[in-house]
Amino acid sequence: MRDILPDEVELRAAAVHEIVAVYRAYGFRRIETPALEHLTLLAGSEGGENEKLIFKVMKRGEELESARRAGEELADLGLRFDLTVPLARYYAENHARLPDPLKAIQIGPVWRAERPQKGRFRQFTQCDIDVLGLASPLVEIELILATTDALARLGLSGLTVRINHRRLLEVVARHCGFAEAAHAAFFIAFDKLDRLGAEGVLGELREGGQETKAVRSFEALLPVLQKAEVSLEGLRAALPGAGATDAWQSLATIIATANAEIAAGCRVRFDPTLVRGMGYYTGPIFEIAAAGYPSSIAGGGRYDRMIGRLLGREVPASGFSIGFERLISILGERGGVPAREGAAAPQRRVALLVDDSGDVAAAVRAAKALRAEGYLVSLEVRRKNVKKQLDDLLTHGFWGYAALDDPARAPQVKPLVRRAEAK
Amino acid sequence: MRDILPDEVELRAAAVHEIVAVYRAYGFRRIETPALEHLTLLAGSEGGENEKLIFKVMKRGEELESARRAGEELADLGLRFDLTVPLARYYAENHARLPDPLKAIQIGPVWRAERPQKGRFRQFTQCDIDVLGLASPLVEIELILATTDALARLGLSGLTVRINHRRLLEVVARHCGFAEAAHAAFFIAFDKLDRLGAEGVLGELREGGQETKAVRSFEALLPVLQKAEVSLEGLRAALPGAGATDAWQSLATIIATANAEIAAGCRVRFDPTLVRGMGYYTGPIFEIAAAGYPSSIAGGGRYDRMIGRLLGREVPASGFSIGFERLISILGERGGVPAREGAAAPQRRVALLVDDSGDVAAAVRAAKALRAEGYLVSLEVRRKNVKKQLDDLLTHGFWGYAALDDPARAPQVKPLVRRAEAK
Repeated sequence: MRDILPDEVELRAAAVHEIVAVYRAYGFRRIETPALEHLTLLAGSEGGENEKLIFKVMKRGEELESARRAGEELADLGLRFDLTVPLARYYAENHARLPDPLKAIQIGPVWRAERPQKGRFRQFTQCDIDVLGLASPLVEIELILATTDALARLGLSGLTVRINHRRLLEVVARHCGFAEAAHAAFFIAFDKLDRLGAEGVLGELREGGQETKAVRSFEALLPVLQKAEVSLEGLRAALPGAGATDAWQSLATIIATANAEIAAGCRVRFDPTLVRGMGYYTGPIFEIAAAGYPSSIAGGGRYDRMIGRLLGREVPASGFSIGFERLISILGERGGVPAREGAAAPQRRVALLVDDSGDVAAAVRAAKALRAEGYLVSLEVRRKNVKKQLDDLLTHGFWGYAALDDPARAPQVKPLVRRAEAK
Repeated sequence: MRDILPDEVELRAAAVHEIVAVYRAYGFRRIETPALEHLTLLAGSEGGENEKLIFKVMKRGEELESARRAGEELADLGLRFDLTVPLARYYAENHARLPDPLKAIQIGPVWRAERPQKGRFRQFTQCDIDVLGLASPLVEIELILATTDALARLGLSGLTVRINHRRLLEVVARHCGFAEAAHAAFFIAFDKLDRLGAEGVLGELREGGQETKAVRSFEALLPVLQKAEVSLEGLRAALPGAGATDAWQSLATIIATANAEIAAGCRVRFDPTLVRGMGYYTGPIFEIAAAGYPSSIAGGGRYDRMIGRLLGREVPASGFSIGFERLISILGERGGVPAREGAAAPQRRVALLVDDSGDVAAAVRAAKALRAEGYLVSLEVRRKNVKKQLDDLLTHGFWGYAALDDPARAPQVKPLVRRAEAK
């Protein structure tokens, strides 16, 4: 976990502002759930590895004492490890007061008790949109357009959306002849194609005890799956009697429609090797990468069965999640969020230097007058070493300063300059 | 803990937006600390009752097992119960990279394991500003002006800032003859004057074993302390040989200067009965109430010794905290955040109704065209019972709707009206 300094807080706020503006234009609205959920919810959520990383909160008072005596579980709550499980619980509890479909934006912290490593933190922000209550390719089209629009507005270009469908992955598994019970293990190995390469995946399948015949069929199919520009039709031709007609049709609609309207320089591309780990996906799945950044910056998919397990009736659901921490690190490297066309110039931060023993009332009045001119004004007490003080102000991002030398005259704002430049 | 629905999330975001805009104009900048802190920090923080309400997080993995075996403390982290203790830790760790003075805005959730009761939640948002590194009445003047400006911008009027000084409270205690060791108990009883009245407080002092002579002196002084418009001079005259000259002077400067510049209809008033519970205050203390709302909506004070305990050298500090949940409940009753002068009209939310089996590409194009006109557009599948669907849209705050009847023509947005009104 880490502290966030003012520059980064402002960068994060600016990014959230732009993302929310785009998502709101697409009809999404923000919701919020608490950080703590019952452990029983978190631990039974198909969250895979993440469930092992839950920060558990101890029971309190008499309940803790009686759990201790009885040798029972000492924790009852946990910090959420993603925003999807809480969303499902939120919908199950509040659906009567929510619009149908619900188009939700969630931006907030999640916690995972991972071993600290470079660039990963145990508290980090997720930024999700989800549509609950609608099973139509319209949903995925809008998720893709909204997310690429948001990333494009933040200055990311050349976005590629890779898309696949869980049911086509099953078609592939059946075509190769993997037993139904072995599909999950097949997908886990297949998901590593990027990292391990074809030989690595085939080796893992063989060592995992998959049927030799099925592994050979998969090996034969791999060149088609890995073809740089394989089309839906191209793959379907390689899978005679494929079935899942509506899944092929749905993907075709999503790809064609999204490509017609997507931001300039971006595209949606069918990628039959895209698997995505989570067991809860049931339909289209997708990831976005930006030009120049190899790993994906957003990912999501349809998960039609998760809410049903809590609510007792199936509710179709699909969502897209931006890797917010990664996005912020890219925007930080690039110097921030690009200014919007026609946006007002950012306000300038200035320090008004006053003597502590001087005319306090005049200082407060002068600060007020500068604020009325649009400056962000910090009243600061003048130090003996004023040159050092001005250098410090510059280091901390102040644009200018003013001094209250004559209380009767309005102070003049002067820009701060590096002393080397000033020479 | 509770879920927050879209209307309230938007209200909260609008309030934060206005508050941050005002605080930034006063030279403050946002910082963020993680939700979890080490228990050793939280439990040794003079946080009083709040320390008993910490949600404790269990150790993990091998560390948990070895703590179990050794019968040691099973928790190592805790959820923060306020934003002041984390701020002190943040400053102690990061001061070399922070401006001096640091003017920090913190807006974020805190957690307290209280018994659930009406209007109180176990996760709630605090909204603090603090100035670290400057011991000058300028600080309190700016804290008061910034906070009253922020509340006034949110539409609260007739704000009264009550102000007192911890050292004047000590002058009162010494004047009455309470022993130094009994001051803390005296302040705790004195703090209940609002709720218990004079007789209740005197009774508690007597029962608490305070010296009879001191309680009698206090009883004799109470009419002066409780006088509606007691002045600093008036009280000082009643306390011969009072001492603490700089405290009287500092309060006089703060009151006069802030009153000269405070928002119209608001005022700062000396109130020698203001105590405020926290043991860590060392200087001026203050609270704000709005006209028509009896309990205070913001409070704060100077705490010059807290950071020193962590950093090893004293750092002057003073802060003001808005009761954010209370503010939101007031704003909710009043119908939201008042529009700023000259602000753009809020964007209108409309639903674009399309047939799921219809022309998806035309629907997506039409939605894009309406967005370009400035609408917030939710693509929705038309239901069989359209009248019911329109009613539902109205219930959920949609302003209008459009239907894609003829893909060749741009859809027209019509306002939604209550069916009763439409008749």
